[in-house]
Amino acid sequence: MVLLRQLLGDVLRRLRIRQGRTLREVSASARVSLGYLSEVERGQKEASSELLLAICTALGTPLSQVFREVSDNFALAELQNEPVLEMPREPALRELAETTPRTPQDLTDMVPV
Amino acid sequence: MVLLRQLLGDVLRRLRIRQGRTLREVSASARVSLGYLSEVERGQKEASSELLLAICTALGTPLSQVFREVSDNFALAELQNEPVLEMPREPALRELAETTPRTPQDLTDMVPV
Repeated sequence: MVLLRQLLGDVLRRLRIRQGRTLREVSASARVSLGYLSEVERGQKEASSELLLAICTALGTPLSQVFREVSDNFALAELQNEPVLEMPREPALRELAETTPRTPQDLTDMVPV
Repeated sequence: MVLLRQLLGDVLRRLRIRQGRTLREVSASARVSLGYLSEVERGQKEASSELLLAICTALGTPLSQVFREVSDNFALAELQNEPVLEMPREPALRELAETTPRTPQDLTDMVPV
């Protein structure tokens, strides 16, 4: 069973990482707490419409684009017709975003080839 | 400023009305309260991901389609680049859905030409 908050969290996290930005930067720009943004990205918290707008504004990304990606990901899950909750959800990228790498080698190890 | 819960509510309401179904039918099928569904449709309440899934299942509509429409509506609002909150949001259809018409003439009066 695929839930909106999980696909939405994935899209937001992917956008942020694509921009090379940290949770700290984006949460400060959106004026939401770092913990809140982190929970939203992990699909653990429902983002209110107002805070979602603030986060997308901080990411410089129109809501139409965010929800087009959400729609595409729902379509993919529907096509597969199987639970996607158990799928690995970019653990390497997740690690990269949440931990402070200690050495350049750590970073390299975390990035999927 | 356009908010997700408002565009989402519009899409859900439009889907239900297109199917000729009442709030009562869909809320019973989705196992949510009629008041909750009505508030979600009016953009007054954020639907949780679980209840949104239940509502879309009751409407027999994949979430990918719902969010494609949400995305399209966001894109339209972004193109117009002006507040859409003040735009009339299908008041005739809203009336039609929420009130019990008294005479056929009432119905005719409510439907836009």
